[in-house]
Amino acid sequence: MRPLDSLALRHDGTRLWVLDQTRLPHVETWVDASHPEVMVDLIQRLAVRGAPLIGVAAAQCAATFAAGGAREADIRDALLALRAARPTAVNLMWAVDRMLLHLPEGPEALVSEAEAIFDQDVALCEGMARHGLSLLGTRESVLTHCNAGALATAGIGTAVGVIRRGWEAGRIHHVFVDETRPLLQGGRLTAWELGRLGIPHTLITDSMAALALRDGKVDRIFVGADRVAANGDFANKVGTYGLAVQARFHGVPFHPVAPWSTVDLACPDGPAIPIELRHPCEVRGFGDLQWAPEGSPTWNPSFDVTPRHLVTSLVLDRAVLSAEQLEAGALKRLG
Amino acid sequence: MRPLDSLALRHDGTRLWVLDQTRLPHVETWVDASHPEVMVDLIQRLAVRGAPLIGVAAAQCAATFAAGGAREADIRDALLALRAARPTAVNLMWAVDRMLLHLPEGPEALVSEAEAIFDQDVALCEGMARHGLSLLGTRESVLTHCNAGALATAGIGTAVGVIRRGWEAGRIHHVFVDETRPLLQGGRLTAWELGRLGIPHTLITDSMAALALRDGKVDRIFVGADRVAANGDFANKVGTYGLAVQARFHGVPFHPVAPWSTVDLACPDGPAIPIELRHPCEVRGFGDLQWAPEGSPTWNPSFDVTPRHLVTSLVLDRAVLSAEQLEAGALKRLG
Repeated sequence: MRPLDSLALRHDGTRLWVLDQTRLPHVETWVDASHPEVMVDLIQRLAVRGAPLIGVAAAQCAATFAAGGAREADIRDALLALRAARPTAVNLMWAVDRMLLHLPEGPEALVSEAEAIFDQDVALCEGMARHGLSLLGTRESVLTHCNAGALATAGIGTAVGVIRRGWEAGRIHHVFVDETRPLLQGGRLTAWELGRLGIPHTLITDSMAALALRDGKVDRIFVGADRVAANGDFANKVGTYGLAVQARFHGVPFHPVAPWSTVDLACPDGPAIPIELRHPCEVRGFGDLQWAPEGSPTWNPSFDVTPRHLVTSLVLDRAVLSAEQLEAGALKRLG
Repeated sequence: MRPLDSLALRHDGTRLWVLDQTRLPHVETWVDASHPEVMVDLIQRLAVRGAPLIGVAAAQCAATFAAGGAREADIRDALLALRAARPTAVNLMWAVDRMLLHLPEGPEALVSEAEAIFDQDVALCEGMARHGLSLLGTRESVLTHCNAGALATAGIGTAVGVIRRGWEAGRIHHVFVDETRPLLQGGRLTAWELGRLGIPHTLITDSMAALALRDGKVDRIFVGADRVAANGDFANKVGTYGLAVQARFHGVPFHPVAPWSTVDLACPDGPAIPIELRHPCEVRGFGDLQWAPEGSPTWNPSFDVTPRHLVTSLVLDRAVLSAEQLEAGALKRLG
């Protein structure tokens, strides 16, 4: 296979390696994720995460498995296990379905398809950044939630890709980063990425975002998406819906940023998107530190759905569209 | 001095003891807080916290200091240091000012005043609970933020006092608890209190509250207050403002619960309330566990101000008032 080198995923020609994102920002450990069973576990415990990246990683893993001589039936089982690893982000299903389509053609076709998925994701990120840039005035201050950056894609990221190119172009001068409880992808990952890129930013708790908006500190909000329904409703990391409400209340433009691989035209609307419920220990603490009383009852939806009426516009790789335009088939016409 | 025994503060007749709330819920350690220098430190690092409690504790500490033979000038210095320990909760200033008034009368007067402040706080909690109860229908599900319970007062609490009496009366059947980043008073303290009381509850991250409201899981929100301005604007733990916005957006009644010692008639409105900014390490992690990149820039306002137009009504110890009624002098007439 062709060597690959992105911020969170590498291929050395023989083995597939992923950066263990549960250990960031303090420890940078690369894990051999060549075997599908290992990859399923890494995806489920969010060592590999981000809607586009888990699709790319699943495809790479299956291709590596195939190139290593696995039987077609085992590759199929592996693909189905990867497809079911997490329920909300549709990119995973999208990438696996592409691989399944090429399965009968043999290992070379799978390798080639996985490489195409990787390359395409890199290009899609640049497309989103280009279109997102068109929204920006000068020296805007923006806010983002969770991590929709290079750690979540094969390229420069979705929301953070727009922010990165916007900052390079002088159109963005500051970024507020929601820490994003419970798994702290903002505080651990986005803050780390922005620090590496030298982009000025301020880390806040999720509960401070409303105050930042009220004080006029934020001109615009960019977030990622795990699944965009056909009508423009979308699922993203829990907290996104509340942020969209705050944006509407304070008159701040609010944009999900996603490639077309995140758009699920077979899904009519938000209520049809399956929402992953995760373990109570994530709400009772963080990792080994459990600060709430043992056994406290919790509710832990990992995602929420933002209805399209709270979306100013969607930044896609080929256009900026309103939810209405998306629903009216603009994406298909662009395709 | 008279022995006292509340959930968070005890007096054994000679020494004043406080429960170290930074170590809850896992460790229950009582700290000797008889000396004012120790108490200032305990208040500043939130080992003793909650607007009413820090007023009660400061008064008890000064009385203990006086009863131990301290000179009047030293007691005055101690009271001024206690008064300045934290800037936002007005109860601290209110209690210290009462003690300063009695300072010239000698130690016995100070002891008597500190005991009166303690007893009054216990009674005020019951008053708030009684008036809060009048708002409730049957089997309501409520949400609270931070800790406004027995750990925050000398009595049953402000918001949690209403919840406790409401649950005992069968008017409340479930409580959602915001974990309340950064210092997790909801996840550590309110969940612990409700667990001890056997009140059914669900712990959520702050970012999930909007979703709980959207799903119709919450009928009403009760929060505490650190200072209520004369026009009905009020300061409370950061995140309260965002919650008030969500309540308005989703049509859920929203009530701060506070004793009259929290109302600052000298403060005209919210913008006049001083807001404490705390250390970045609180946003970068929790205690020794720092999960964000070292040196990440942060913003850490400990409180926010909710404007009165987002307040359905204020639950006070002597009445339930609208912000307009409060401003029109209803509190003085009740007094």
